[in-house]
Amino acid sequence: MEIETDVAIIGAGPAGLFAAFECGMLRLDCVLIDALSEIGGQCTALYPEKPIYDIPGLPAVEAGALIASLERQIAPFHVRRLLDRRVEALAGTRGAFRLRTDRGDSVAAKAVIIAAGAGAFGPNRPPLAGIEAFEREGGVMYFIRRREALRGRRVVIAGGGDSAVDWALSLRDIAAKVWLVHRRDRFRSAPESLAQLDRAAGRGEIEKVVPYQLHGLSGEDGVLSGVSVATLDGEVRTLDADCLLPFFGLSTDLGPIANWGLQTGLHTLVPVTPSTLETTLPGVFAIGDVATYPGKLKLILQGFSEAAMAAHAIHPIVRPEQALHFEYSTSRGVPAA
Amino acid sequence: MEIETDVAIIGAGPAGLFAAFECGMLRLDCVLIDALSEIGGQCTALYPEKPIYDIPGLPAVEAGALIASLERQIAPFHVRRLLDRRVEALAGTRGAFRLRTDRGDSVAAKAVIIAAGAGAFGPNRPPLAGIEAFEREGGVMYFIRRREALRGRRVVIAGGGDSAVDWALSLRDIAAKVWLVHRRDRFRSAPESLAQLDRAAGRGEIEKVVPYQLHGLSGEDGVLSGVSVATLDGEVRTLDADCLLPFFGLSTDLGPIANWGLQTGLHTLVPVTPSTLETTLPGVFAIGDVATYPGKLKLILQGFSEAAMAAHAIHPIVRPEQALHFEYSTSRGVPAA
Repeated sequence: MEIETDVAIIGAGPAGLFAAFECGMLRLDCVLIDALSEIGGQCTALYPEKPIYDIPGLPAVEAGALIASLERQIAPFHVRRLLDRRVEALAGTRGAFRLRTDRGDSVAAKAVIIAAGAGAFGPNRPPLAGIEAFEREGGVMYFIRRREALRGRRVVIAGGGDSAVDWALSLRDIAAKVWLVHRRDRFRSAPESLAQLDRAAGRGEIEKVVPYQLHGLSGEDGVLSGVSVATLDGEVRTLDADCLLPFFGLSTDLGPIANWGLQTGLHTLVPVTPSTLETTLPGVFAIGDVATYPGKLKLILQGFSEAAMAAHAIHPIVRPEQALHFEYSTSRGVPAA
Repeated sequence: MEIETDVAIIGAGPAGLFAAFECGMLRLDCVLIDALSEIGGQCTALYPEKPIYDIPGLPAVEAGALIASLERQIAPFHVRRLLDRRVEALAGTRGAFRLRTDRGDSVAAKAVIIAAGAGAFGPNRPPLAGIEAFEREGGVMYFIRRREALRGRRVVIAGGGDSAVDWALSLRDIAAKVWLVHRRDRFRSAPESLAQLDRAAGRGEIEKVVPYQLHGLSGEDGVLSGVSVATLDGEVRTLDADCLLPFFGLSTDLGPIANWGLQTGLHTLVPVTPSTLETTLPGVFAIGDVATYPGKLKLILQGFSEAAMAAHAIHPIVRPEQALHFEYSTSRGVPAA
């Protein structure tokens, strides 16, 4: 596909989607590009049913519903989407960039916004023989996209952080059995969650299996029938579970973006000028979790406000002849969808 | 009243309200102080029924409804409110401030957030003899808090900007008659609104009275019965209206805040360090429309993100002994309201 646009936005998570809205409000054409097959980034792919509490004006919104609202918000601007595509190469300079995707698309853009979040993301897999076959059949899952899928199942949750503890608490109501396996006695989680965990364990709703590590999987034809765990001393137990949920965090990878001549810091972060969100490459901007500057908070809210600042900083690149008259949305309105 | 708190927030508009939420999430106690008798600032006092389009995740939200949502969002934290009070004096230093209100309250706070918007605000009044009496009886109004109050009335709208044009368009459906008076032929408004105005004028739904200026008011006992207008040449016309809506902008006044030793720039703005929102007075922070820094956009959204950054910057002032472990709201949740 050959596409011409004002602004190429790489990443269709919440920050990228709101960047498309802000571009629309400034009458800049844009294209959203994402490696996933759906918009929403981690919100859609990893935790669509998780409530988020700190979006202003939305006291408690599920991540998937937030994405749906953002999609309605950009609808008036008819933003083109290139999904299932990874941007492989970026060439050109401020005002005249060309991006190439892994599916051979060529996108000409006057400015680029990188809203790539943590980059391509994937779960840290436990090193267990034959785990891929169980993943394919749904016996091993790293993300719970529908909590109901766990109803009545016998579930081993592995890990010691928030995700492990929160899901153990959440699933005890609907699963037939919940084991929580961790290699230490102590869990890292909010004090209130730990207190709930202890109460639930006391009532037998959750069985803590500590200090144990995952040791092996059993089953046939990809159908899980047991998870074995072991102490450091080599003592082995087998739990007759039909589902394993390992929560060992995400591995992330900025991918080709790391090779674009941007100054990248530690942890796949792209440093930007805070007032414009411009990277060290003029005309290329970064917003959301991928961007860093002094005082940066990794909140979805910050990605939103960075999107607004970046779009305003981009306007003179795309429309050098036209002074931007700042207008409130209450005055301007939006086009009919 | 004698009050002790961690953070005193001056101004209960959207930025101040969300600062209270962010303080709550960081377990900092706070107090909201506002000169108005309601929370919400201009959103509540000036345009509660106006839709706002650029709050992320809320494709079109009326200003009053946004404030109601923010109020629900801070409910779990039981934030104390000192309304109908103007902060007169600020004394002390980082970690130990004392504020005094015009009603004699004394508030001890470790840090201060100024979220005063444009400061105390009021309409620019046209210099017409006897206008105060008509204001008291509702014949002259500067803000439309309930559009329905104009149903069936004969309305003169005066002014040449967005507010005048938008209200003329909005009221033509319910008012018995709408005149739009402006001292020039041309209106300053969005192109789409101007096109609508011309179509409405062509159909006789709005009568443009240009180039005319307001000249006088007639009526008895505060009940308006006519508005006279004049050209620069002194030609006078009288419009048999029962309501005048002058839209000549707001005058704003930072009030005592201007005397607190903050470096204030032009236009009642307080310069801050962008990464922390701290003013030149250590321990005193400014967010929202009152705060300025390079690249600042006067959007409600920016006030929200500044609230988050200021609260995080304040945490070590209030809890110097306690390292702040950054947590996502999805992990932490909020207390039950």
